[in-house]
Amino acid sequence: MNLSPLQKARYEYSPKLPGMLRNGVAEICVQEGADTQSVADQDKIKALFPNTYGKKEITFVKGANTAPQKKQVVGVILSGGQAPGGHNVITGLYDALKAASKDNELLGFKGGPDGLLKNDYVTFDDAFIDAFRNTGGFDIIGSGRTKLETKEQFATVAENAKVNGLTAIVIIGGDDSNTNAATLAEYMAANNTGIQVIGCPKTIDGDLKNEDIEASFGFDTATKTYSEVIGNIERDANSAKKYWHFVKVMGRSASHVALECALETQPNICLIGEEVKEKKMTLSQITSYIADSVEKRAANGDNFGVAIIPEGIVEFVPEFSVLIAEINELLAGEKTDAFNALPSWNDKYEFIKKGLTAESFAVFDLLPQGIQQQLFLERDPHGNVQVSLIESEKLFSELVKGELAKRKAAGTYKGKFSALHHFFGYEGRCAFPSNFDADYCYSLGYNAFMLISYGYTGYLSKVSNISKPAEEWVAGGMPITKMMNMERRNGEDKPVIRKALVELDGAPFKFFAANREKWAVETAYTYPGAIQYYGPSEVCDITTRTLALEKGC
Amino acid sequence: MNLSPLQKARYEYSPKLPGMLRNGVAEICVQEGADTQSVADQDKIKALFPNTYGKKEITFVKGANTAPQKKQVVGVILSGGQAPGGHNVITGLYDALKAASKDNELLGFKGGPDGLLKNDYVTFDDAFIDAFRNTGGFDIIGSGRTKLETKEQFATVAENAKVNGLTAIVIIGGDDSNTNAATLAEYMAANNTGIQVIGCPKTIDGDLKNEDIEASFGFDTATKTYSEVIGNIERDANSAKKYWHFVKVMGRSASHVALECALETQPNICLIGEEVKEKKMTLSQITSYIADSVEKRAANGDNFGVAIIPEGIVEFVPEFSVLIAEINELLAGEKTDAFNALPSWNDKYEFIKKGLTAESFAVFDLLPQGIQQQLFLERDPHGNVQVSLIESEKLFSELVKGELAKRKAAGTYKGKFSALHHFFGYEGRCAFPSNFDADYCYSLGYNAFMLISYGYTGYLSKVSNISKPAEEWVAGGMPITKMMNMERRNGEDKPVIRKALVELDGAPFKFFAANREKWAVETAYTYPGAIQYYGPSEVCDITTRTLALEKGC
Repeated sequence: MNLSPLQKARYEYSPKLPGMLRNGVAEICVQEGADTQSVADQDKIKALFPNTYGKKEITFVKGANTAPQKKQVVGVILSGGQAPGGHNVITGLYDALKAASKDNELLGFKGGPDGLLKNDYVTFDDAFIDAFRNTGGFDIIGSGRTKLETKEQFATVAENAKVNGLTAIVIIGGDDSNTNAATLAEYMAANNTGIQVIGCPKTIDGDLKNEDIEASFGFDTATKTYSEVIGNIERDANSAKKYWHFVKVMGRSASHVALECALETQPNICLIGEEVKEKKMTLSQITSYIADSVEKRAANGDNFGVAIIPEGIVEFVPEFSVLIAEINELLAGEKTDAFNALPSWNDKYEFIKKGLTAESFAVFDLLPQGIQQQLFLERDPHGNVQVSLIESEKLFSELVKGELAKRKAAGTYKGKFSALHHFFGYEGRCAFPSNFDADYCYSLGYNAFMLISYGYTGYLSKVSNISKPAEEWVAGGMPITKMMNMERRNGEDKPVIRKALVELDGAPFKFFAANREKWAVETAYTYPGAIQYYGPSEVCDITTRTLALEKGC
Repeated sequence: MNLSPLQKARYEYSPKLPGMLRNGVAEICVQEGADTQSVADQDKIKALFPNTYGKKEITFVKGANTAPQKKQVVGVILSGGQAPGGHNVITGLYDALKAASKDNELLGFKGGPDGLLKNDYVTFDDAFIDAFRNTGGFDIIGSGRTKLETKEQFATVAENAKVNGLTAIVIIGGDDSNTNAATLAEYMAANNTGIQVIGCPKTIDGDLKNEDIEASFGFDTATKTYSEVIGNIERDANSAKKYWHFVKVMGRSASHVALECALETQPNICLIGEEVKEKKMTLSQITSYIADSVEKRAANGDNFGVAIIPEGIVEFVPEFSVLIAEINELLAGEKTDAFNALPSWNDKYEFIKKGLTAESFAVFDLLPQGIQQQLFLERDPHGNVQVSLIESEKLFSELVKGELAKRKAAGTYKGKFSALHHFFGYEGRCAFPSNFDADYCYSLGYNAFMLISYGYTGYLSKVSNISKPAEEWVAGGMPITKMMNMERRNGEDKPVIRKALVELDGAPFKFFAANREKWAVETAYTYPGAIQYYGPSEVCDITTRTLALEKGC
């Protein structure tokens, strides 16, 4: 491997642990708190998790280690999309495990859950681990999206764990993966395998967050990376003064990433899916909202701007969801063939016009032809519209262009409108973790081992008070079942970790909402620049604006 | 303005000057070298620049300042596309000017050359300047693309200069802007205006480079920013192991940016326009070249990769240029109407088939239909094909996909191919300048004032030996005419600065060529990470790989 100067330098970085974990494994003891309950549907969750439900919240404190002495053989997987800091969870876990005993072993299962199912793993040693300290990516063992959720899969995992003498499994993943970690923990307990399961909260999307988990790891680094390039684009827009940049950012189920980037860069426009849904906004209303900013800025001579669009925005627009449902129905089963047999787009268009309700056809008719065709021609294997393929940044810039043409004809708008498009997602998922994520992840991994050594299972590694300096962070664990409720998924009631959406009465959104009218018209851009790992603490040890606002810092 | 922590911290940075400029303006004296000659067409250039041709190369050294004492009122413009460090040229110029005398004045003309033509300017003071120290962007006074090249424009500039009592004008721009600076200098001298003109070498494209100008400013920061995100994408590709990423980077006339990014990140593929042209490569050959890498990697189980594509690549493909010329001819003048009147794409396609030579039609027929239609439907106001609109990253991924389908049918290729696309340009042009660019630009500006104070005109501010630490940099000036030759532009022979293309026998390309076969098959990615402004010198004071290789470091 050809190492960059930064990668070499980052190897030398010592991640900061919470104060109570800094005195060595021998000086960490456990303090049990109150019994826990799930956030909702307590009876149902309890019935589904008879062996792991209701366990106590736990916190680590300084004191003589009282954990039973036994050889630990831990398996670890990375599950789902990449997030900066995943490598540090593993290095923290490794360091704690080896500090407890040189005989302990850490096995990395490759390619996500598949590694556990196929028993495909590597045994870590110092040289292996050292090559990944404080680096981005999940390339240490790869990741995968297979879901561990069936009894058959659990049995296979248990068997492979037994073959390798595993005492515990650590699952590093998002809300679904940790839901599955809880179910796996319950299976392991119910079957007396003796194998513990611990989860670690990962996702750049920021939607694994609750009263126990202040932030999922990776969100900090990813949003800082997007904000760096969005800030650069803002500065370019404000220099060239001739383009509106429509910037889509990752985040389908929630708009935390878009909101955080907006808080960091103060663009003219940022759409928030949760607000669109709450206010039942239509495509026309959103278009008007953006066009108003373009028009007001143009009146001030500013024919440029920046708009942030969350990847999943159209799925939050109620009328659009209805349209999609109608299209899926319209082309269900054999009807697709009849549709495909129509010779020209004009024929297809008439077919669509007849097949949709008047309301949905009106929505459909608003769309640029390219997107209309995309909705009907590119379907997934089940024949459903692939909403994720819709380039929402281009959709809205097209709609705004059309709206501005009307306003120009009406004489209210006299500016020029030229749009450029960007999509940032893959650019941030594997960045070198910020100092915050490097520290937080290392602590989560280190802490995960402490939970294992003290015999806990079905717990999420929990490090809190993380808006404060690392010295003041609090390490501990929380039963995953505490975060669960029942939700309807694919026609079944399932116990799942409740996904955190942007709260419209939360401090981050309220700060944004209180400022956005000004930002829409003025040029109030903030230029965060590249993530700094060295230098003044106020530059290189800052957390997200979202977390700071949530914690009132 | 809401300042980011990094912006606040960057205000405190003191850019490093070349050693001989560090003792204060009073301790800088000038050393004249040999007379100069233009790189080619000496007689013609001399005849066009009778007052400014053949002047001496000059170098600054430590010693008593012998410049005449007079009040300097300097006007400065930023010309053309943004490049990181432009603000520092201005702050360096301002600091030297004020160090020489508090009575001196610096006027910033707004919006590029237009500011000089419209006499639209701001007079800088400390507070104004301090807000832009070590920041990215051209927002201090804006920029513009108006070309200063006619006698009438020069007369207007001279008049406005006289009104404001200007003693000199500094033009911060690329090859064209500096060519125009030379012509303006000649005009000012020929008309005895007493107004000097000095140029500064700006462009992220890296194509303003010659034996005197080791690098244009902004190239370092822009390529480091692109390399940061390309490196992140490589790490993502190597973690997810399921996508080929086609990454287009800015640079139409030359492929320096692509080459530098490849040297920094070691992707599987990087196309170099100059090589494509030199070897007269066809679209099919390029496609095969990429598909070979995909196939070999797939054979190793690696169904992922990263390919860097320079923005202007198709213009380097000879057969493609012929096709474009034929299309422009086919639809010239009234023929467009006949074409547009054809009812369907099928009719148009038949028209095209008849109208093109067999060779060009074969090329046309290779293209994905979307691009075929784009070539014919989206024309510029002169009716010409807009080659710059072609999404070359998508073009090549489509062509590769088609080629792989053939190979799969033939049984040689058994992998999976799924492509994602990116374009990086605007993301890097306004980044906070790297320490290198912050130092280099500040030095160029400081040095520009020294050239003014010593009475030089038609010179480019020159700082050389820049692959070494700043202490060892050499400050001086070079007549712009020395870099000129005659070239055919729009049907006329014109004196211009020769544009620097990637040299196929130069060290950067040779290093790339010597390694690329390995990179094409192996996963030899390098992850540069974000630009660092603080910390170990080997992390935060490095220059481009291109410059290092050119200078044998």
